[in-house]
Amino acid sequence: MTTKKQAGEAVLAAKARLGLTWVQLAELLDAPEAWTVAALLGQHPLSVTQAEKAAGILELGAQEIAAFTARPTRGALDAAVPTDPTIYRFYEVLQVYGPAIKELIHEKFGDGIMSAINFKIDVDRRDDPGGERIVVTLDGKYLKYQWG
Amino acid sequence: MTTKKQAGEAVLAAKARLGLTWVQLAELLDAPEAWTVAALLGQHPLSVTQAEKAAGILELGAQEIAAFTARPTRGALDAAVPTDPTIYRFYEVLQVYGPAIKELIHEKFGDGIMSAINFKIDVDRRDDPGGERIVVTLDGKYLKYQWG
Amino acid sequence: MTTKKQAGEAVLAAKARLGLTWVQLAELLDAPEAWTVAALLGQHPLSVTQAEKAAGILELGAQEIAAFTARPTRGALDAAVPTDPTIYRFYEVLQVYGPAIKELIHEKFGDGIMSAINFKIDVDRRDDPGGERIVVTLDGKYLKYQWG
Amino acid sequence: MTTKKQAGEAVLAAKARLGLTWVQLAELLDAPEAWTVAALLGQHPLSVTQAEKAAGILELGAQEIAAFTARPTRGALDAAVPTDPTIYRFYEVLQVYGPAIKELIHEKFGDGIMSAINFKIDVDRRDDPGGERIVVTLDGKYLKYQWG
Amino acid sequence: MTTKKQAGEAVLAAKARLGLTWVQLAELLDAPEAWTVAALLGQHPLSVTQAEKAAGILELGAQEIAAFTARPTRGALDAAVPTDPTIYRFYEVLQVYGPAIKELIHEKFGDGIMSAINFKIDVDRRDDPGGERIVVTLDGKYLKYQWG
Amino acid sequence: MTTKKQAGEAVLAAKARLGLTWVQLAELLDAPEAWTVAALLGQHPLSVTQAEKAAGILELGAQEIAAFTARPTRGALDAAVPTDPTIYRFYEVLQVYGPAIKELIHEKFGDGIMSAINFKIDVDRRDDPGGERIVVTLDGKYLKYQWG
Amino acid sequence: MTTKKQAGEAVLAAKARLGLTWVQLAELLDAPEAWTVAALLGQHPLSVTQAEKAAGILELGAQEIAAFTARPTRGALDAAVPTDPTIYRFYEVLQVYGPAIKELIHEKFGDGIMSAINFKIDVDRRDDPGGERIVVTLDGKYLKYQWG
Amino acid sequence: MTTKKQAGEAVLAAKARLGLTWVQLAELLDAPEAWTVAALLGQHPLSVTQAEKAAGILELGAQEIAAFTARPTRGALDAAVPTDPTIYRFYEVLQVYGPAIKELIHEKFGDGIMSAINFKIDVDRRDDPGGERIVVTLDGKYLKYQWG
Amino acid sequence: MTTKKQAGEAVLAAKARLGLTWVQLAELLDAPEAWTVAALLGQHPLSVTQAEKAAGILELGAQEIAAFTARPTRGALDAAVPTDPTIYRFYEVLQVYGPAIKELIHEKFGDGIMSAINFKIDVDRRDDPGGERIVVTLDGKYLKYQWG
Amino acid sequence: MTTKKQAGEAVLAAKARLGLTWVQLAELLDAPEAWTVAALLGQHPLSVTQAEKAAGILELGAQEIAAFTARPTRGALDAAVPTDPTIYRFYEVLQVYGPAIKELIHEKFGDGIMSAINFKIDVDRRDDPGGERIVVTLDGKYLKYQWG
Repeated sequence: MTTKKQAGEAVLAAKARLGLTWVQLAELLDAPEAWTVAALLGQHPLSVTQAEKAAGILELGAQEIAAFTARPTRGALDAAVPTDPTIYRFYEVLQVYGPAIKELIHEKFGDGIMSAINFKIDVDRRDDPGGERIVVTLDGKYLKYQWG
Repeated sequence: MTTKKQAGEAVLAAKARLGLTWVQLAELLDAPEAWTVAALLGQHPLSVTQAEKAAGILELGAQEIAAFTARPTRGALDAAVPTDPTIYRFYEVLQVYGPAIKELIHEKFGDGIMSAINFKIDVDRRDDPGGERIVVTLDGKYLKYQWG
Repeated sequence: MTTKKQAGEAVLAAKARLGLTWVQLAELLDAPEAWTVAALLGQHPLSVTQAEKAAGILELGAQEIAAFTARPTRGALDAAVPTDPTIYRFYEVLQVYGPAIKELIHEKFGDGIMSAINFKIDVDRRDDPGGERIVVTLDGKYLKYQWG
Repeated sequence: MTTKKQAGEAVLAAKARLGLTWVQLAELLDAPEAWTVAALLGQHPLSVTQAEKAAGILELGAQEIAAFTARPTRGALDAAVPTDPTIYRFYEVLQVYGPAIKELIHEKFGDGIMSAINFKIDVDRRDDPGGERIVVTLDGKYLKYQWG
Repeated sequence: MTTKKQAGEAVLAAKARLGLTWVQLAELLDAPEAWTVAALLGQHPLSVTQAEKAAGILELGAQEIAAFTARPTRGALDAAVPTDPTIYRFYEVLQVYGPAIKELIHEKFGDGIMSAINFKIDVDRRDDPGGERIVVTLDGKYLKYQWG
Repeated sequence: MTTKKQAGEAVLAAKARLGLTWVQLAELLDAPEAWTVAALLGQHPLSVTQAEKAAGILELGAQEIAAFTARPTRGALDAAVPTDPTIYRFYEVLQVYGPAIKELIHEKFGDGIMSAINFKIDVDRRDDPGGERIVVTLDGKYLKYQWG
Repeated sequence: MTTKKQAGEAVLAAKARLGLTWVQLAELLDAPEAWTVAALLGQHPLSVTQAEKAAGILELGAQEIAAFTARPTRGALDAAVPTDPTIYRFYEVLQVYGPAIKELIHEKFGDGIMSAINFKIDVDRRDDPGGERIVVTLDGKYLKYQWG
Repeated sequence: MTTKKQAGEAVLAAKARLGLTWVQLAELLDAPEAWTVAALLGQHPLSVTQAEKAAGILELGAQEIAAFTARPTRGALDAAVPTDPTIYRFYEVLQVYGPAIKELIHEKFGDGIMSAINFKIDVDRRDDPGGERIVVTLDGKYLKYQWG
Repeated sequence: MTTKKQAGEAVLAAKARLGLTWVQLAELLDAPEAWTVAALLGQHPLSVTQAEKAAGILELGAQEIAAFTARPTRGALDAAVPTDPTIYRFYEVLQVYGPAIKELIHEKFGDGIMSAINFKIDVDRRDDPGGERIVVTLDGKYLKYQWG
Repeated sequence: MTTKKQAGEAVLAAKARLGLTWVQLAELLDAPEAWTVAALLGQHPLSVTQAEKAAGILELGAQEIAAFTARPTRGALDAAVPTDPTIYRFYEVLQVYGPAIKELIHEKFGDGIMSAINFKIDVDRRDDPGGERIVVTLDGKYLKYQWG
């Protein structure tokens, strides 16, 4: 049985071999970019239609289709504290700004959280005189602590 | 000697006693909101002018001013994996979307990272038919892996 | 400044001294039992009215009222894996039944989670020929993975 | 030798291929739902009769039957703190409500625990004007601390 | 408020000052030896009668009585893996014989556990030509895995 | 090369296939029960004679004989804190009674330890009106702290 | 698919077989020494030209070329605290001099960091009457904490 | 008794109050910069002469002198993986370049290590068209693995 | 109550104030050097006679005498992996030579261990043309694995 | 490619098959005993001559010779805290005597360490009326903290 992780590695290999980009894949699947990447790397299930379409584009087979549609056990970090510098910076943001984000959420919304389930994320580029900037937008529903 | 942590607790107490909000404090200090919260909670140093102004507004003393201007040893999480649900959700976002963010940064910019130093963050509200949404924008300079 | 933890300890001491039960406290505060215990032990903020009422009942002062109304940084376990046997059994339930719960949630609801925010919990007794039974009911809103 | 984990993966694959649900499997095995899932995923042993019946339904072989009946070394979390969001929420419940549950067990029953051995669990659905709700009921025998 | 840990330290100091042994304390309290030690060190609650009697013998005050009768949050090891050699040897026994104990319990009793709640423990001496031997007897009720 | 762990798995498979019990195996090998289980699961080396006899009974080959006689690197827990409930209860005993055991050893014997090397363990059954009880007896030589 | 780690092992084997040094490889690739080693061991991607050249020199194939050009998930330590003595000494330098380095960076540059991205490293030899010395030079761009 | 840590905090406070820099302190003590900072923060002992001189400059007393001359138990990181971004970058360098440094040390010197004891470190500035650069030079004696 | 740790700190302060060495203290107490240091730092109990003598020499009081004679909870490392370089090197010896020591013990003695209880240790100096050498001798009784 | 670990396992198997001892192997290689064991188990590189000789004696092939001569990434413990009792006792010695060893090194030599690189170790037997004793001698060069 092909695991979602193995399917994700097959996606990376096919993508490189075919010269495809994630942006192209997202367009072909008619799905949001970050969702597409996360899903093909194994963090979200694809519908059968999406899985078949993705397998067609990436020249993958029935094993990968089955893996794409399987329910994920989520969680992709290599360790509790990630070691890859590109990913670590976001952990560092939490170390430095975590309590500030919490204070502002509580002040602007109330006692609650930003949902990570009813949630979307974008990775964009912003040009600036000081150089290119990466803009990551986290957009989640506010969930108020509510007893039942 | 008052530590930055103790000063941060004094800020929280004064803020509650005086009925001030973070947004008001940021406006009074003429500084960005998230920066203001992070700095007053001990993750960024204030300039002497800012520190005196903040102490004036919050009715704090020389000890807190000294703590505000001191260099921080940064890092505010209670554990490697944060336990507070409001903060944890951002850690969860990393577990689910970390590799996707990395892939998109590499595809859209190249082999590099989003700086967490040349960086700003905003916590905003977006109204939506489905309910209020929290929008957290991370905006950091792209830093390319560059040998010297 | 009295912390929420210190206030919680003061509650336990007062409760013992006054011979009050949690059930009585919950009735007096007109609030759910488990919420009342969690809140007075520091995991939820009380409203000013509730805090003053609780302080009145428990013969506590302004310091505790301030602590009761403060925003909590949540998380009460003594370690990642709890050592107290009464609490550990619930961790054990997760070790043995965690994936089964996940499978059944996915099958009965879809790809999503049980909210721990829009959530209530009850601890009840059920008499059984085989002896008394503890029935803990977790009741949380189903949140579907939903992109924005 | 097929391990219980491999047998569990074979169950998931067969279940998907045959279009069976856990509820159907539980009915066919005449066993409780959550027990059925936990057992087929390797956390409980099946009797020989149950194992043969399950293998028949799922079109599995002697290897899987042997694995189903083997004694489990229990414990299914991927890490001390689970990373999958659906499972994590239950860990979060422990972080926020663990001491409250303990207080209420002690008050309503005495100094003791809820057994996780003489124990059953249900995952149910409750419709509510605010949306579907997941109701997880933990039902365990009260065990009193008793010296011998 | 005196914690159970502080009360335990007061017990150790008083016991040394008064030249009392644990065996004498257990006799005076008419309670089992190991239970007496564990309880006075904070792992079990004493009844009010026992607490007053113990405080009388050990010349302790109302603070300690209150601590003795308080509900414990159990767990006494200094670290997940204990560092004290006398305690570590028991951890080592688990590392070397844990699976063997499990196999024999399953073979002799069935799929279940030895209760650590309905449980007693003794620490005895056995003289042997090869030298004195420590005999620690763990005696717990067999609890069978039983669905509800 | 067959490892001791693989040999242990082969033992479990053969034992199930042949319908043998650990008690029978111990009798056939004329060795103590718990020692037999620990040794065949890889925590003690067997003599060549014992290994050949065991392999004969269990219908195993030269590879397993070599593994049985090899020196073990001991330590069988799946994690520093074991996850299997049957094994965990013994860890819990240490958390609750560890310091009490230490106190009693020191009082009854002096400053020293119970050897885990010159040591034997038994897992027995005791019938009791309150139900079957598991009695685990740890019997180790007292070793006094002695300088040279 | 050959992973970057497997490709790194193939490099080490080929290098030994062909009697090549890292210094020679760096010259042949016209690249800095430390970069060359880090890249061939999997911590940096090579360009297609570099990868083909490296594969030609080391007599490796298409699989290794693909691995060389793949994006790395960086992080090479065997554990959070490295066990190899040659690498551990650098961790020890952090334990002893970390805060001193931080103080001097802040004093000489301001509130900021040394980039590990716009960064180069050299490992050189310095002869000294007291014996050969290893000189490791870390040279990174100063990045000032800058809000956007 | 003043600990080395408390003395280090007194140094930081005095230094700020008196408007002194580390570079000035190092010159006044006629000692290397990084050594001076590390020593005054508690990682190296000062000689009595140095300690008295330092206390004189910083207007500290006999308690601090005693602390300065005491033998340190070294190790200054807040956690195994440091959380402060300025210090973390050096840990990241180890994650990315650790094995490369090891390879080059072995190739250029032989099987051995860079001493962290016979060792000096400098933190310097280098101006570059691309911006200021931090140059940290680690200079340690090569120690060859040598059997006695 | 003075803890053994506080008593150890008082010893260090008194020893410095009085200009005494450990070797002198060991002679005055007529006890082995390493034992004396370990005991005064809290890892072994002193007899009443020794404790009074030590307190007399070091000009300490009744509190310290009580602490010296108290039973220790042993274990002195600051972390599972020690951070102090002088202590770490011994941990490193275990990382590099641990299995070799084990093999030689098994070959020269049989299946067993070196006792750390019936044990002595010496720290000596050996002059060598290549420079001074530290010779640490561990001398412990061989304990054979022996069933009862 | 055969790893050093696999080569070590091949050594153990060959040694058992041929009935060789480590002492014989050390004599045949004309190398110190503990060095020989550590090196053949993968913690030190062998010279080509030694590797060929060792392979000849142990009837191993070119793959093992290559592994023997490869540079090791050192560190052989199965966990930060070793679980095997024979190895653990040495860790325990560190827990109990680590600070005492440090004090004596500092007193007898000065502020520095015992090298673990310019180092040798012996495992010997000493007969004693009280029984056989294991004497492990650690002999390392004293390295003084020396700035450059």
